[in-house]
Amino acid sequence: MDYQSVLERIANDVAPQIGRGRPAEYIPALAAVDRRHFGMAAADIDGRVYGVGDWQRPFSTQSITKVFTLALVLATGGDDLWAHVGREPSGNPFNSLVQLEYENGIPRNPFINAGALVVTDRLQTLTGDASSELLGFLRQESGNPDLAFDPKVAESESAHGDRNAALAHFMASYGNITNPVPTLLDHYFWQCAIEMSCADLALAARFLARHGIRADGSRLLTRSEAKQINAVMLTCGTYDAAGEFAHRVGLPGKSGVGGGIVAVVPGRCTLCVWSPGLDARGNSVAGVAALDRFTTLTGLSVF
Amino acid sequence: MDYQSVLERIANDVAPQIGRGRPAEYIPALAAVDRRHFGMAAADIDGRVYGVGDWQRPFSTQSITKVFTLALVLATGGDDLWAHVGREPSGNPFNSLVQLEYENGIPRNPFINAGALVVTDRLQTLTGDASSELLGFLRQESGNPDLAFDPKVAESESAHGDRNAALAHFMASYGNITNPVPTLLDHYFWQCAIEMSCADLALAARFLARHGIRADGSRLLTRSEAKQINAVMLTCGTYDAAGEFAHRVGLPGKSGVGGGIVAVVPGRCTLCVWSPGLDARGNSVAGVAALDRFTTLTGLSVF
Amino acid sequence: MDYQSVLERIANDVAPQIGRGRPAEYIPALAAVDRRHFGMAAADIDGRVYGVGDWQRPFSTQSITKVFTLALVLATGGDDLWAHVGREPSGNPFNSLVQLEYENGIPRNPFINAGALVVTDRLQTLTGDASSELLGFLRQESGNPDLAFDPKVAESESAHGDRNAALAHFMASYGNITNPVPTLLDHYFWQCAIEMSCADLALAARFLARHGIRADGSRLLTRSEAKQINAVMLTCGTYDAAGEFAHRVGLPGKSGVGGGIVAVVPGRCTLCVWSPGLDARGNSVAGVAALDRFTTLTGLSVF
Amino acid sequence: MDYQSVLERIANDVAPQIGRGRPAEYIPALAAVDRRHFGMAAADIDGRVYGVGDWQRPFSTQSITKVFTLALVLATGGDDLWAHVGREPSGNPFNSLVQLEYENGIPRNPFINAGALVVTDRLQTLTGDASSELLGFLRQESGNPDLAFDPKVAESESAHGDRNAALAHFMASYGNITNPVPTLLDHYFWQCAIEMSCADLALAARFLARHGIRADGSRLLTRSEAKQINAVMLTCGTYDAAGEFAHRVGLPGKSGVGGGIVAVVPGRCTLCVWSPGLDARGNSVAGVAALDRFTTLTGLSVF
Repeated sequence: MDYQSVLERIANDVAPQIGRGRPAEYIPALAAVDRRHFGMAAADIDGRVYGVGDWQRPFSTQSITKVFTLALVLATGGDDLWAHVGREPSGNPFNSLVQLEYENGIPRNPFINAGALVVTDRLQTLTGDASSELLGFLRQESGNPDLAFDPKVAESESAHGDRNAALAHFMASYGNITNPVPTLLDHYFWQCAIEMSCADLALAARFLARHGIRADGSRLLTRSEAKQINAVMLTCGTYDAAGEFAHRVGLPGKSGVGGGIVAVVPGRCTLCVWSPGLDARGNSVAGVAALDRFTTLTGLSVF
Repeated sequence: MDYQSVLERIANDVAPQIGRGRPAEYIPALAAVDRRHFGMAAADIDGRVYGVGDWQRPFSTQSITKVFTLALVLATGGDDLWAHVGREPSGNPFNSLVQLEYENGIPRNPFINAGALVVTDRLQTLTGDASSELLGFLRQESGNPDLAFDPKVAESESAHGDRNAALAHFMASYGNITNPVPTLLDHYFWQCAIEMSCADLALAARFLARHGIRADGSRLLTRSEAKQINAVMLTCGTYDAAGEFAHRVGLPGKSGVGGGIVAVVPGRCTLCVWSPGLDARGNSVAGVAALDRFTTLTGLSVF
Repeated sequence: MDYQSVLERIANDVAPQIGRGRPAEYIPALAAVDRRHFGMAAADIDGRVYGVGDWQRPFSTQSITKVFTLALVLATGGDDLWAHVGREPSGNPFNSLVQLEYENGIPRNPFINAGALVVTDRLQTLTGDASSELLGFLRQESGNPDLAFDPKVAESESAHGDRNAALAHFMASYGNITNPVPTLLDHYFWQCAIEMSCADLALAARFLARHGIRADGSRLLTRSEAKQINAVMLTCGTYDAAGEFAHRVGLPGKSGVGGGIVAVVPGRCTLCVWSPGLDARGNSVAGVAALDRFTTLTGLSVF
Repeated sequence: MDYQSVLERIANDVAPQIGRGRPAEYIPALAAVDRRHFGMAAADIDGRVYGVGDWQRPFSTQSITKVFTLALVLATGGDDLWAHVGREPSGNPFNSLVQLEYENGIPRNPFINAGALVVTDRLQTLTGDASSELLGFLRQESGNPDLAFDPKVAESESAHGDRNAALAHFMASYGNITNPVPTLLDHYFWQCAIEMSCADLALAARFLARHGIRADGSRLLTRSEAKQINAVMLTCGTYDAAGEFAHRVGLPGKSGVGGGIVAVVPGRCTLCVWSPGLDARGNSVAGVAALDRFTTLTGLSVF
């Protein structure tokens, strides 16, 4: 497939959407980003990468890194994770405490904040340094040794971290968090603060299109585990809009409030799009539109 | 693909699961079914049908028909439906009133009971006789003119129908139901009481694998609408276990408490499996296991 | 105590509040009432009655009659009622379905709509004609044989009755309603449609100030049962504002969306105030202010 | 009234209840207490104190001190408190997060844990040392200069404090907590760890029976503020059993999981009863029974 010309057509088609929506405003480092940015990259399973617009410009990955943390925990610790976090859509806004209480401290899935805290807690237990482990993995898969944390973002997250602290203490009260809450929160906030470009992310996510095989040809995940992550991305990857995203785009995807979205066409390619303006449910307006165009133009939806 | 030998291998592999779980017990007509039944059928997009076990024995379709009612409403009335029912997973047991109240009488998706009542209400408004319309459609698509309602099941449903009556009156209080509640409930209960075999259901659902094209070659749905139904089946088709089903099976599917499950491999085939023993969330134990085997053996998951 | 001069002073003091708030608007018969009405009556335990303003003008009692239905059920059927309805404040708006679901069809208290439906259902079972029984009782206690239902109000309630129908069907699904739902709703709506004046209501409620003794000197309730009703009025009698009412007024009270409020000073007197303008939680603005003045002027709060 | 003989009769009447129920088990210091203790004291408004059983033996006051913290905040900072905490019953178990989320970080009342954290936060802001301020006040009112914190209990509370930490961080995320969470929790846990006897508590609470007047004759609260505290005790003072308590006992009361309950007969006297065995909702079994007997024997219910 001629990804480059598809991407160029998409960039043209979604131009009217760019700048719509509002950047995340709860931390200054995100609020200050110019909402007119737009970039999109595709990486095929052989590692060729294509792009348009700001596809090489780093942005704040935010929740997108939750996919990679999940993969590392499954790769390292295996299915035991699923005793501590569910795989069902949450049916509630992404940081709700309500459902957590009804279900005795077991978060519904690994992509709501509570679930991601559990996954990070386990990576910390398995490796002793969850955020460094993640950064190292992302550098290797993207082939970009310069990937780094943005300390201003991490500090901002920490300064506005009362709700995540509440979630962590609440789950700790059920025995579902094992590391000290302040340590856990540090690693959690550092993960949200990794800066990557669309190209970096499309390359780093390729193991999900390659049924678990890493960039260097070694196996990270079993075929079944890779499928599981794609399934949980499809049903839970875009906050409270997963049904809408499945309906419009029809691909496994994971969004972040930095305006990025990673999507996977199993067996074919990975995509990453970035534009900072968010809709009411926290997903990039132009980003969702671009992925919608992609599946319409290529027919590459999973449905 | 040699579907017949795949089905035979599956029947062999899942034999230890057959008879596990419990049949639905809330109505006598379902509780009396022998839980040792097992049947499975596959229909390819050209209409060839394959089967094992009790694949030609009629059973109570129950919620499975919600897929077809949804298709008929989209085909007849179009996207206007989505102003009256959402497309997000519910994150709650299938007949919960809670979420309905938080969201002002708009059910989260067309497959929870509240959502199916809204869809039936619209089909009734569009056609004047929702349940006959549905039965006629199923007869045509399955090629089986003998399909019929089981009046004992419909009466049983009606006799235990207080919760559905509550849902309907509750949505009516928000103006989201337009037909008289008793009329609506009659059509709703008749739909649940249609008897079909695995072969009938696999054939009838083929338009979902054929991107909207009916058995006779005419178009029922646009390609986009067919994709939408597959998406909502994947995210919401198996009660509160949609995430788990996506994770294990990785196909759009719709289950019923009669023990049947229909699944779709877009562009390839449809599947229907039946075994009455249900798990705690209302899905057939042997049925889920059989579909899990199918995607493992064939690699035909959407992920 | 010189009740007459206290009432006159109150009428003067609350004059600026009269006309504030909005009449109930969900049924036309209530919405059409002039919000500038104000009346207040006091009845001492010996049956002397005092009043100011529109104290002899009939208005729609609405939820106030729930107190009397409760008393009749306790008098006739005894404590068995408490297995079917709780005695705890609801902590939610007055017709919420949520809490009902969490507590398996047992309403939290007899004054939320769900609870009042259960109480009416039991009075119907005990007497065969709940609304006539209630009307007869009110005529006797008030000494006013002309008390009657307003059929327009009853019809209006019925025409807007989907939410109460939902509640009744929902509880029926748990086995907590025994009469047919349409019969139950008829009696329920008739009870809401009884017209009484402040004088009528103050007289009719005297048994609560007289520790269970009726107007004719016979015993309706044990001392303990009368105390129980006062307790449930104090903790649950004014929708989601019971705490606020206890705090400001400090008396057992029961309000209705017709703008009336009945209050009890145990061992001393009963009060009834009426003014149609309601606050956001459904209680009469001038009515609450008048009762607040009463306890301030007389020191007759229970606290 | 001859309080002494009433207390002796109560002690005799409730003897079969003593030892029923289970002590609080979430912290070792409470779980280890012998459940066969029983003590009861009454203090009349002139300061005479009467008692039976273990009425002079110190026990862990736990949530009972929330009444005194509330009084100190109203006395020092006034009604501004009510913008930060409500006065309505919670309708949910005492440390639920659910309602807090629906109401944007404003707890329903000052006696659920979330509300008590807000009250403590404000006392800390007003005085700079909330727990010392409280201890000083209790020493003065009880006339017992030896009152002290039990450091083992405070440490235990802190070690099991994740749920309270979650509540505090959660409210901080709404801006409804102003002190650093660890500081706030320290003061909160110290307050729970004050040891007092029934005699101490009955004496210390007398200002509530004296319409706001302290032991030394000075005014702590306005008459209206004292009434407010009694009202909130009656509607919210005994966890999720306030309606039941109002119904059985009919007095303003505040219980603690140490097994103590303080109750107020406005204008007459205060009562304190202690017995460690708790019912399913966290209130002393023998304690509630003893207060029930008191109002039955004396007729001193507020209803």
